[in-house]
Amino acid sequence: MNGSPVSYSLREIVDLYGGELVGDPQIRVSRVGTLENAGEGSIAFLANPRYLRQLSDTKAAAVIVAPASREGTRAARIVHDNPYLYFARVSALLRPAPRARPGVHPSAIVAGDAQVDPSAEIGAQSCIAAGVRVGGGTIVGPGSRLAENVHIGRDCLLHAGVTMYSDCTLGDRVIVHSGVVIGADGFGIAFDEDHWVKVPQIGRVRVGDDVEIGANTTIDRGAIDDTVIEEGVKLDNQIQIAHNVRIGAHTAIAACTGIAGSVQIGRYCRIGGAVGIAGHVNICDRVEISGHTSITKSIDQPGVYSGVYPFEPNRQWRRNAAQVRHLAEIARRVSALEGELAELTRSRS
Amino acid sequence: MNGSPVSYSLREIVDLYGGELVGDPQIRVSRVGTLENAGEGSIAFLANPRYLRQLSDTKAAAVIVAPASREGTRAARIVHDNPYLYFARVSALLRPAPRARPGVHPSAIVAGDAQVDPSAEIGAQSCIAAGVRVGGGTIVGPGSRLAENVHIGRDCLLHAGVTMYSDCTLGDRVIVHSGVVIGADGFGIAFDEDHWVKVPQIGRVRVGDDVEIGANTTIDRGAIDDTVIEEGVKLDNQIQIAHNVRIGAHTAIAACTGIAGSVQIGRYCRIGGAVGIAGHVNICDRVEISGHTSITKSIDQPGVYSGVYPFEPNRQWRRNAAQVRHLAEIARRVSALEGELAELTRSRS
Amino acid sequence: MNGSPVSYSLREIVDLYGGELVGDPQIRVSRVGTLENAGEGSIAFLANPRYLRQLSDTKAAAVIVAPASREGTRAARIVHDNPYLYFARVSALLRPAPRARPGVHPSAIVAGDAQVDPSAEIGAQSCIAAGVRVGGGTIVGPGSRLAENVHIGRDCLLHAGVTMYSDCTLGDRVIVHSGVVIGADGFGIAFDEDHWVKVPQIGRVRVGDDVEIGANTTIDRGAIDDTVIEEGVKLDNQIQIAHNVRIGAHTAIAACTGIAGSVQIGRYCRIGGAVGIAGHVNICDRVEISGHTSITKSIDQPGVYSGVYPFEPNRQWRRNAAQVRHLAEIARRVSALEGELAELTRSRS
Repeated sequence: MNGSPVSYSLREIVDLYGGELVGDPQIRVSRVGTLENAGEGSIAFLANPRYLRQLSDTKAAAVIVAPASREGTRAARIVHDNPYLYFARVSALLRPAPRARPGVHPSAIVAGDAQVDPSAEIGAQSCIAAGVRVGGGTIVGPGSRLAENVHIGRDCLLHAGVTMYSDCTLGDRVIVHSGVVIGADGFGIAFDEDHWVKVPQIGRVRVGDDVEIGANTTIDRGAIDDTVIEEGVKLDNQIQIAHNVRIGAHTAIAACTGIAGSVQIGRYCRIGGAVGIAGHVNICDRVEISGHTSITKSIDQPGVYSGVYPFEPNRQWRRNAAQVRHLAEIARRVSALEGELAELTRSRS
Repeated sequence: MNGSPVSYSLREIVDLYGGELVGDPQIRVSRVGTLENAGEGSIAFLANPRYLRQLSDTKAAAVIVAPASREGTRAARIVHDNPYLYFARVSALLRPAPRARPGVHPSAIVAGDAQVDPSAEIGAQSCIAAGVRVGGGTIVGPGSRLAENVHIGRDCLLHAGVTMYSDCTLGDRVIVHSGVVIGADGFGIAFDEDHWVKVPQIGRVRVGDDVEIGANTTIDRGAIDDTVIEEGVKLDNQIQIAHNVRIGAHTAIAACTGIAGSVQIGRYCRIGGAVGIAGHVNICDRVEISGHTSITKSIDQPGVYSGVYPFEPNRQWRRNAAQVRHLAEIARRVSALEGELAELTRSRS
Repeated sequence: MNGSPVSYSLREIVDLYGGELVGDPQIRVSRVGTLENAGEGSIAFLANPRYLRQLSDTKAAAVIVAPASREGTRAARIVHDNPYLYFARVSALLRPAPRARPGVHPSAIVAGDAQVDPSAEIGAQSCIAAGVRVGGGTIVGPGSRLAENVHIGRDCLLHAGVTMYSDCTLGDRVIVHSGVVIGADGFGIAFDEDHWVKVPQIGRVRVGDDVEIGANTTIDRGAIDDTVIEEGVKLDNQIQIAHNVRIGAHTAIAACTGIAGSVQIGRYCRIGGAVGIAGHVNICDRVEISGHTSITKSIDQPGVYSGVYPFEPNRQWRRNAAQVRHLAEIARRVSALEGELAELTRSRS
């Protein structure tokens, strides 16, 4: 919420990103805001029709709107087919991502043979083990721990307190949030009469370019082959990805979802929050899964899939849920009724 | 489980916190215990009727009971309407919360312009960035990381390994457990033809007074405006709170619950574990939600809400669950049967 | 995925672990591989019939198979009743677990009275508080934090960034993955008219021998008595175990499962991912629970239990889920139909 030191005129913005400008092109904006709370020098947007009524009242200096809302305000505006995407660009323009301050903090522990690009930033209290490579422009946040032979590409941003186990790799421009653990052992155990025996987990995790990984998400290393997160995948917080999962490029997954071992997810999927996906399931490209759904078998057709038990006041829920345990019996009774009624009708005629 | 160095007589305790004392007021207690395992010098309590039978057998020196259980034991006892609350106070009396040992550990990295109150304790290996303020009596545990301009009030307790991103704030007397991440980016992405574009997350997280946040919980910063946790909110472990959520004062949320973006939760709500709340939902004051329920639309009436699929032995579950996919058809068939039967009855009379 | 420096002949392996050897006993293997991707010098296995067709095509130097698949390949093979268990042993032979490099890293902070066995390894940037004991051969990973009076047995492996609160204990040969928090406060709060009062959590967490705890899992300390994880328990990632839970020996729990306060789980249970278990529930030995099931009451018979709402294409789900809220009414209507039909039939005869 700090004021940004840069400002741009609407003219400059439209020159950069296109769209139709309605209003004074000299108006300058230096920050983004919501329709509701935007103040002087702010640019806001309307993407969700839920907030349409706020458009006419906004105090924003300018707004980004879809063609359908072109006349919904008297404020200066940029009209564009995808106001949210347009806003993302303007916001990044006004508030550029942090850039590496090259160098290794004196409190960091860096192994002698680690290869840290001179333009990378290694934060305080971090540990960089033998054989690690860190690419140019990459930031490794304070208190992060990179184990042996971790390779990280260029222009990545690891926030504070990220942990990577040995041999795991990140591509370029990957963002990893605090508390993320990449490469812990998969849950491989074999039962031996009266106790479990650990199955060594010797695969790696390979993360592609332009992936973002949310806070406290965990991605386990493969049991033998690797766990793979393809380029452009976006993972929210507290997601669990088990060993040997492959997530296809540009798939986005919301928080708290758990994906069991050896699951294959296609490209351009959109998976809601708190979804569970059972082991060895395959999901094809362009599948959308509603939040809290449990996926217990493979999906081979694009589309939207759901499986959420509806909530209701507790008293009604009790009555209805009690019948769930009688569903097979109810179905049988309905069939029997149909049979008897047909018999009765037939005998009557 | 260390013996506590302090002890109090029952007389002293009743003088402090009220309640009716039955038995020898000179009995001294120095620790708390369960009815089942309490030993000499221990005080126990009975709040859950499930454990009633343990009351008569307890070896505790004294017990705290509700009026209804007044005669359930021959031990010395304090009778009070809310034995659990009473116990909480006695326990805090016998085992006071840790107090700050003022000073900055020599291994901590503290920015030159950070303002750390002299009575605060900054733990080993912690990182305190530029512009941070830490109030009097606050403890920042070892290995914690406070990014630029974080503001923390008085008498807070951050356990080891807490991460706060830039510009986030805590009120007074806030307790934050290990592994918590406050202020990571919300999951804001806009789709551009064939890939996702990150939407900068520039809001903050603001946490009110007397909030407690459980281990490995994550609270994302707002996209534009702030994410807000009001005073007295109690959050258990591994909760995910997305960008721009607002949680009303004195609401308590159990572990593993996920709350999607822009959700508004009222005051004095009680939300069970592993609940999922969909984006943009509003929940009014004093709503109680059963564990594992998925809340997919707003709730505007106080009360208890539930939506849990009942479990049963797998064989029965298979049979019943198979019919869930035929529910609409079953309902139709029942309507048809009713129609046919009515027709038959009518034609018959 | 580094080549292992050791190699063994099939003869040597069969001498160590038994099984029938078919093929050249002089063949040497130095690494494990999957049937699909194994190369020269690799040994693979077939345990899941799903991958049977890969058996005939594999380029592995040798394979481990069950008697039923003895003739499914011409490669050298070891025939054993439990190929997965056999593979686990061979894999551990070829890739032994890391051994402690004795000593305390100079950047670690170790309290004067901590008792660290000289054969233990204390990683960089770790914090070992007063009264801590670390047994022989144990590795404490970089950035880990052990609070006052933590006791850890022999030959444990704590990966980077583990946090243990005061007074908690680990047995021998325990593996703890990154981001784990052991001993944070349980969620104990008592309501006092208009706000919550914290109930001090003074129990410990006691973890038995040969337990493994996955990344970012949290285990809360007991409120008064202890939370107990018995020997041989295997916990996957992001599991939440609340105060005063007891988990019986050799029980295995998959990722994202949440277990509420005072739950008792028996021995040799197998609990799927994202399961929720409500407070105070007791589960007997040898219970298996399907992923995503919500357990709301005690189970006193061994067996498999499930409670998952089936997923389907969103359009069908909407139609069927809408009827869930009418189940009690549907059941009533079916009963009414049965009554009317019986009446009709009776009056007709």
